[in-house]
Amino acid sequence: MTLSQRPSTPLLDNVRLPADLKRFSDDELRRLADELRAETISAVSETGGHLGAGLGVVELTVALHAVFDTPKDRLVWDVGHQCYPHKILTGRRDRIRTLRQPGGLSGFTKRSESAFDPFGAAHSSTSISAALGFAVARDLGGAPEPGLGDAIAVIGDGAMSAGMAFEAMNNAGHLGKRLFVVLNDNEMSIAPPVGALSSYLSRLYAGDPFQELKAAARGAVSLLPPPFQEGARRAKEMVKSMTVGGTLFEELGFSYVGPIDGHDMEQLLAVLRTVRARADHPVLIHVVTRKGKGYPPAEAAADKYHGVGKFDLVSGKQKKAPSNAPSYTRIFADSLIREAEADDRIVAVTAAMPDGTGLDLFAERFPSRCFDVGIAEQHGVTFAAALAAGGMKPFCAMYSTFLQRGYDQVVHDVAIQRLPVRFAIDRAGLVGADGATHAGAFDIAYLANLPGFVVMAAADEAELVHMVATAASINDRPSAFRYPRGEGVGVDIPAKGEVLEIGKGRMIQTGSRVAILSFGTRLGEVRKAAESLAARGITPSIADARFAKPLDRDLILQLAAGHEALITIEEGAIGGFGSHVAQLLAEEGVFDHGLKFRSMVLPDTFISHDDPASMYDLAGMSAAKIETKVLEVLGIASMAARRA
Amino acid sequence: MTLSQRPSTPLLDNVRLPADLKRFSDDELRRLADELRAETISAVSETGGHLGAGLGVVELTVALHAVFDTPKDRLVWDVGHQCYPHKILTGRRDRIRTLRQPGGLSGFTKRSESAFDPFGAAHSSTSISAALGFAVARDLGGAPEPGLGDAIAVIGDGAMSAGMAFEAMNNAGHLGKRLFVVLNDNEMSIAPPVGALSSYLSRLYAGDPFQELKAAARGAVSLLPPPFQEGARRAKEMVKSMTVGGTLFEELGFSYVGPIDGHDMEQLLAVLRTVRARADHPVLIHVVTRKGKGYPPAEAAADKYHGVGKFDLVSGKQKKAPSNAPSYTRIFADSLIREAEADDRIVAVTAAMPDGTGLDLFAERFPSRCFDVGIAEQHGVTFAAALAAGGMKPFCAMYSTFLQRGYDQVVHDVAIQRLPVRFAIDRAGLVGADGATHAGAFDIAYLANLPGFVVMAAADEAELVHMVATAASINDRPSAFRYPRGEGVGVDIPAKGEVLEIGKGRMIQTGSRVAILSFGTRLGEVRKAAESLAARGITPSIADARFAKPLDRDLILQLAAGHEALITIEEGAIGGFGSHVAQLLAEEGVFDHGLKFRSMVLPDTFISHDDPASMYDLAGMSAAKIETKVLEVLGIASMAARRA
Repeated sequence: MTLSQRPSTPLLDNVRLPADLKRFSDDELRRLADELRAETISAVSETGGHLGAGLGVVELTVALHAVFDTPKDRLVWDVGHQCYPHKILTGRRDRIRTLRQPGGLSGFTKRSESAFDPFGAAHSSTSISAALGFAVARDLGGAPEPGLGDAIAVIGDGAMSAGMAFEAMNNAGHLGKRLFVVLNDNEMSIAPPVGALSSYLSRLYAGDPFQELKAAARGAVSLLPPPFQEGARRAKEMVKSMTVGGTLFEELGFSYVGPIDGHDMEQLLAVLRTVRARADHPVLIHVVTRKGKGYPPAEAAADKYHGVGKFDLVSGKQKKAPSNAPSYTRIFADSLIREAEADDRIVAVTAAMPDGTGLDLFAERFPSRCFDVGIAEQHGVTFAAALAAGGMKPFCAMYSTFLQRGYDQVVHDVAIQRLPVRFAIDRAGLVGADGATHAGAFDIAYLANLPGFVVMAAADEAELVHMVATAASINDRPSAFRYPRGEGVGVDIPAKGEVLEIGKGRMIQTGSRVAILSFGTRLGEVRKAAESLAARGITPSIADARFAKPLDRDLILQLAAGHEALITIEEGAIGGFGSHVAQLLAEEGVFDHGLKFRSMVLPDTFISHDDPASMYDLAGMSAAKIETKVLEVLGIASMAARRA
Repeated sequence: MTLSQRPSTPLLDNVRLPADLKRFSDDELRRLADELRAETISAVSETGGHLGAGLGVVELTVALHAVFDTPKDRLVWDVGHQCYPHKILTGRRDRIRTLRQPGGLSGFTKRSESAFDPFGAAHSSTSISAALGFAVARDLGGAPEPGLGDAIAVIGDGAMSAGMAFEAMNNAGHLGKRLFVVLNDNEMSIAPPVGALSSYLSRLYAGDPFQELKAAARGAVSLLPPPFQEGARRAKEMVKSMTVGGTLFEELGFSYVGPIDGHDMEQLLAVLRTVRARADHPVLIHVVTRKGKGYPPAEAAADKYHGVGKFDLVSGKQKKAPSNAPSYTRIFADSLIREAEADDRIVAVTAAMPDGTGLDLFAERFPSRCFDVGIAEQHGVTFAAALAAGGMKPFCAMYSTFLQRGYDQVVHDVAIQRLPVRFAIDRAGLVGADGATHAGAFDIAYLANLPGFVVMAAADEAELVHMVATAASINDRPSAFRYPRGEGVGVDIPAKGEVLEIGKGRMIQTGSRVAILSFGTRLGEVRKAAESLAARGITPSIADARFAKPLDRDLILQLAAGHEALITIEEGAIGGFGSHVAQLLAEEGVFDHGLKFRSMVLPDTFISHDDPASMYDLAGMSAAKIETKVLEVLGIASMAARRA
């Protein structure tokens, strides 16, 4: 993090806010983009984070802020992970090297961070809905600070393939209001593009990078930049680089302009100025960009440096923290592959997250049995349900936070029909640098209250292996197992998963006075707390519930009967495991005669990005906080309690 | 229900299963369709239910079963409410007059009811995902009973506009597998069509009902029926009635055939036979039908008899049960209109349910401030979030069960950004004839665990008026209020809603020994139970919680302190109100010294359609069951308890 690595940025140094761009000539804007790119690369080399996406939209970011009047005009970045250049231009350059660090800038757009982030994002495909909301509010006289001007959504081709984006386009085309959608087409969402829409977009610029103008008879022509009509040489060249078409978007009521070169500042400025001056209805501007543009190591990498750790500026080599244990994701993938080798009915479904879920490995081994449906959780879940109805054994691997997108399908198509879809829920609990938007906080509650579901959580990576085997064996109802982001705890990995008895937990240690019943990977912190408590002469009983549903009734009632206090802990919000345990204890009359029962759940706040250990400490779920809880429940004053 | 009203159906009388259709000539199939239409009208006149949709697909139903080999071929009806003719043809004619009646046939397709319902539905837009799952399972060797043949989805134009359908088309086009999607285009989902896709579909057959053949050069031509190539006169006429086009679908990788006349049996049979014989990739067959076709009162009605009560066959006049009180839906609409008259920032959003939510009345009064986004809950929720960010006061009115479709958007765009969207949640709790798929069971749990949310439930219609006013006044965070389907209890409606104190409940009656804390409209049954208990000398305290979040801490702790037993009751699944109360009691140490606490929630099963009172009795939540619960908790043996 030496200052000598910092690029020279004479123009950028004069930009405090986007309004400063208005003084720049077009050529200066072009050079500013180069400086902005260098600054972005330099910053991310220090912080890690999403790099490729931001580099692809450097020119677009400059052009949008130069042409539009942000923050009065609402610029909505879809997903938000491409917003680092935007943050640099909008008053946050001084903190850009704190990106995704504890207490630092968010890696996504965030309303609470800046007026220039009018609508935060982190999940994909929300931007058109948001921009349409702003456009409608404007026309109805909505007057939030600092006034309400144009609405511009910038959305990638991957995000555009999600149903939600289609719904928004359909509605926007119907309402017909002035609205700008910039389709940032880099043929690359997090994973390689899938789906027919992607092929369609490719055909729009097949052959030459940019097709010749095909027809002048259609609606979009009126939106072409004035130079077109002036007949200048430059204009003619521009005409040659553009085409009018994009039937699919026009059929939905949008004027279509493009494709245009998203790294050509002149084209960008000319088109944006023209549409800004003339549009009176929805316009789609199809911009073709290259992810990782301008940083050779990123351009050369298969994933275009989608998400990176800190790296060396010159070589691009990423500095990885030494890892002792394989990740839960990897353990899941290896386990599923082993199960699938023994049973050819096992198939896997994911939604644009093959790498993140480990299904890329499954797909290598079983290409015909792995389905990446794109950013389409709704479809993915129902598709998996029908695979189950069709006699297959589907594993639907999604992050907890993204499975929220398929919740109705989980209820309506899986649970009500009692179809044996297996949900492998990655990124359960708090996730670190991705922050609140990616927290896997709600899945225990929203799955365990569905009749018939089996809901498991792995306490460590060996448990995960068993749960993959267990899920594979459950053929008469839906099941789910959750596990966190990151590395396991380093336990031995069993060669073969063991099918667990449904609804049975396991005792970890037998103690007295207080029992701690853990669901998931807090078990490690519970053990640490127990060690610390042992120094005070307190030996808690510890159990791993394994199942939030069905509950291990016998185990729970025994723990309740044999202890003065019972504490449950889970990496999830209220309404999940602890609530089910409380319901059981209440119904069984255990509370009638007194039990010191406590349920440790995530607190009633959204926790900002930080390292996961700090987030869990803030959530009151670290070993120290567990110890404090035990002492409080037992009525023992302690240093820890007094500090807390 | 006299037999004399039954139509004469000589052909239909010889159909026990679809296999019987194979013996029929094309002309007999045409006449069979007429009989099937008459039988459907006759049956629904006795049972009530969805009529218009079924009448629109009578010919299509006959043709599909005649050409395909069900149940080996998987025929998936989207939504399922158009499946009555299908049920008559598939072994359920003998029970068709029990449709939607207690213990009778479901009004939707249902896997547990028949092998001919391979994938149940009731929510829209799932059929393409399901059919694709079956197609993929078939190609992977899936071998469920009775084998696995073709997969056919039948989906309406309204359902096609949902993002989920687009996601499925996108994935199906990408995979390229043999698959049939019949687009049943009647320009009418439950509400008049909205959205740009609808306009697009209309343009496909603008002018003449069916355009002339425009081009023969495209993919779909190879799928045209053999007669086309034989040059017969009839074939020529058919060519004239068809067009090849449908760019949007072709761009997504489908061959497009149509539009064809969905009431012309010859066209249907010819096209279906040809595509069945030749398709080796996804085919979309665009069929134009008329909702309510063949029953003049239905054709003449604005809603085409979408959902009807029992009616007189000749006049079509519906027999409505006398109603004493206005519906909750109506009360909501009237209240919102009153609030909106006083505050022009109030706007309303719904997703293809203007009638069902009462927003049709709001739209009449404030056409520019009401937005029906189509079947697009994901978009609708985020659109509402941006309206809030844009300075408006959006009310997002959806059924509890459909809001599940927008869950991620509620979390990610509304809750995390703490935007003041007001969710008016209709059809909360059990809903009667629509059954398990429409139950509003999970919203309390999935909303109350979101940080910052205010979650209310109305105990009666006067309370609903207050809650609309309260929600209108909450500008700093999201809020939701839920209310059931059907009529209110008949209390006086306040002229003006009163803004309730956030997080404060109200005492209904003060008693001793046991306190019942009710959230929502179970309050009426609680009062009845109390009357019955009074005869035994037991006077429970009764409180209406009003808020599941934030909880009325003082009220709850007082009730706990002042009574031997505390019972919560709510019309929702575990994880909601009762779980939040239990968490509070646990954290406050109330259980440490003993409290007879019970939480009455919906049971851990999906409850089939019945009248709501019976469903709630089965759920253990009727006055009698509440009384039993109280007696059990107090340790009083009773007739009721012994019976239970």
